[in-house]
Amino acid sequence: MTVDALPPLRPHGGVPRIDAERLMLRLCRLGQVGRDPAGRLVRLALSDADAEGRALVTAWMTELGLSVSLDKVGNLFGTLAGSDPDAAPVMIGSHIDSVVDAGIYDGCLGVLAGLEVAAALREAGVTPRRPITIAAFTNEEGARFAPDMLGSLVFAGGLGADEALETVSVDGVRFGDELVRIGAAGAAAPGLPCPFAYLELHVEQGPILEAEDLAIGAVEGVQGISWQRFIISGAANHAGTTPMHLRRDAGLAAARIVAFAHDLARRSNGSLVATAGSIEVSPNVINVIPGEARLTIDLRDAREERLREAEAALARFVEEVAAEQGVAISAERLARFEPVVFDAGLVAMIERAAHARGLLCRRMISGAGHDAQMIARMAPAAMIFVPSAGGISHNPREFTAPEDVENGAAILLEAAMELAAQK
Amino acid sequence: MTVDALPPLRPHGGVPRIDAERLMLRLCRLGQVGRDPAGRLVRLALSDADAEGRALVTAWMTELGLSVSLDKVGNLFGTLAGSDPDAAPVMIGSHIDSVVDAGIYDGCLGVLAGLEVAAALREAGVTPRRPITIAAFTNEEGARFAPDMLGSLVFAGGLGADEALETVSVDGVRFGDELVRIGAAGAAAPGLPCPFAYLELHVEQGPILEAEDLAIGAVEGVQGISWQRFIISGAANHAGTTPMHLRRDAGLAAARIVAFAHDLARRSNGSLVATAGSIEVSPNVINVIPGEARLTIDLRDAREERLREAEAALARFVEEVAAEQGVAISAERLARFEPVVFDAGLVAMIERAAHARGLLCRRMISGAGHDAQMIARMAPAAMIFVPSAGGISHNPREFTAPEDVENGAAILLEAAMELAAQK
Repeated sequence: MTVDALPPLRPHGGVPRIDAERLMLRLCRLGQVGRDPAGRLVRLALSDADAEGRALVTAWMTELGLSVSLDKVGNLFGTLAGSDPDAAPVMIGSHIDSVVDAGIYDGCLGVLAGLEVAAALREAGVTPRRPITIAAFTNEEGARFAPDMLGSLVFAGGLGADEALETVSVDGVRFGDELVRIGAAGAAAPGLPCPFAYLELHVEQGPILEAEDLAIGAVEGVQGISWQRFIISGAANHAGTTPMHLRRDAGLAAARIVAFAHDLARRSNGSLVATAGSIEVSPNVINVIPGEARLTIDLRDAREERLREAEAALARFVEEVAAEQGVAISAERLARFEPVVFDAGLVAMIERAAHARGLLCRRMISGAGHDAQMIARMAPAAMIFVPSAGGISHNPREFTAPEDVENGAAILLEAAMELAAQK
Repeated sequence: MTVDALPPLRPHGGVPRIDAERLMLRLCRLGQVGRDPAGRLVRLALSDADAEGRALVTAWMTELGLSVSLDKVGNLFGTLAGSDPDAAPVMIGSHIDSVVDAGIYDGCLGVLAGLEVAAALREAGVTPRRPITIAAFTNEEGARFAPDMLGSLVFAGGLGADEALETVSVDGVRFGDELVRIGAAGAAAPGLPCPFAYLELHVEQGPILEAEDLAIGAVEGVQGISWQRFIISGAANHAGTTPMHLRRDAGLAAARIVAFAHDLARRSNGSLVATAGSIEVSPNVINVIPGEARLTIDLRDAREERLREAEAALARFVEEVAAEQGVAISAERLARFEPVVFDAGLVAMIERAAHARGLLCRRMISGAGHDAQMIARMAPAAMIFVPSAGGISHNPREFTAPEDVENGAAILLEAAMELAAQK
């Protein structure tokens, strides 16, 4: 793949502005990299497909006059020089690795909109006071290496680079070895220079903006996550000959927990979400009362104390159900992450920029994890969401309309310029 | 196997009485017939194991001086002559075919207690006015040929013998061919002579008698059965980014239906039982809202109108849930049988016999199907239940204590003598 197909920059000397067509072309082009024989987009971290995607982004960075660098875990940076070379950079980031059978927007939009910000500044002949660094963090999806958001986690100092290099993929290879193999191992120590602020434009991956007919989400934080598995032991018995009051029905206990978790979330007025994604009963036969049931409960809330309250309420209910149904219920914690709160000043800035452009905007919480939540450990950070059609993501049907892409990139440009001008 | 191991009859000229030891010996002996290499009891209808069981029962019948006959579908009869040879016989019946990995009581108790009734009368030197016929009906379990209760269904005229002979087993062989192969094809037309009354002693296969510390159940009827499968189509979506009010959660809809069916049964004060035996969700992943769910609901009630009401209430609730959760729900009927009501006079007779013997007894409804419900189409019929330890059946752990076996056989003897004396 060459980069010749994109028209050259057209200097105009006016106000920097997003070229939506160019951004869409980059999105579509990058979205062609990593197609498997079935046509599915599979650009797993540090795979050959990822290498090809990195080469394309690197070529675009170079073409835009950015100085390109890699750190020890393969985080890729392209920096537009500022007039004050000693000032901490404004960072715009996301990722270009994907899940299996992905859409073309998730992650890539944030990186490529960053390139479009640089292109817009270049065309307008504007040199920002602070450098602007566009970052593509390694292994955000976690589809090949655990944990997810690995590159940004290391960048923010949450995990040592050497430890990260020892991570082994689901296909049995070492992170450090794959990094060298695809030529993505850099020399720079992760985390330097520390950003002045961090912005990430991302597709919502949820239905809220579309449902409320809004253009922009000013993301205030990321939900905390609590994953539990409940294993319920009752007594399998004959469906015809066992009276209701003598049953120990594990399936019924599971159903009660599913309904309780849902009702708990409904009563929270939108702060808590609760999902019973996996439900299994045994022996799973029409005329036998389930003797065992297994279910998972996924709780998410933007506030740690509310998440804890929800966990506690669920635990109390599980005890009640166990006593009421005469079943034993064990709980296993599968994952637990505290919520992340983004920088209030940045969120307000995004909101102002949206309003100034006449775009309908709401504050919202991200239900999914993003690199921004890692960078928030070291620098003021916030995110901009644009609508996802049908709320669909991690799927080839992932779609964000070009005007929404343009609006998101315009807000990103506005906020980056404002931040890059700050002392 | 020989029958020599049983002690000979000991005539005593007193009141006919059950020899519990002898009955237990027969139960244990028949329970050894049809063991597979793993020691499991597998005496499927018209198998070699069934043939061996029939030979043993036939030998015992002959030894007791009963006249043995077979009808066209292999129903096996042993008749103790009455003083009035033209009187319609009192029939005592059940079956000796089994499920895979069965216990030794289910079915066999009814047939062998019938033999014990004959033995008790012989030992006491009592000749009843009416003949007493002990019946072992073919293919009650339905584990090899469908439908279950096939032999008694044909005997009662509910299915033509010729049609029954064409039935093909789960292992692909014709009922009529297997019948000839194992030498169980008789000449007699099924249904003749029509019984004066029919009694069946059976293990409860449920926990009620044990839980209430009762010795005898006077069975008033058999529950009607309604089996349905519900298939729920919602929308699979991200557990973190999809707000509660925008979800179409098929798993939640399934949970609501499970809980509703259970609560409906609880509100019925013991008449209705409801079981959600099978529950499956898709994609069954912790962080994805279930887009599809499938569940079965098994409803049983002893009264047809109540069963219909329950079906209607469930259908209304399913519609409500579909509207409330924004899901589509389709219902598929898997089975439907109307309830059977046994003869009130016979039930009262069983109850009186229990009380006369000082045994605690309750009227109850059978949750499972039995040959008695077929014979009830042609003659007054009722059943006697004895406790099943833990309510367990169709399982090697099926167990009824010897004193309970004795009590049940004693009530059977009492009722059979009373009926056999009637004009």
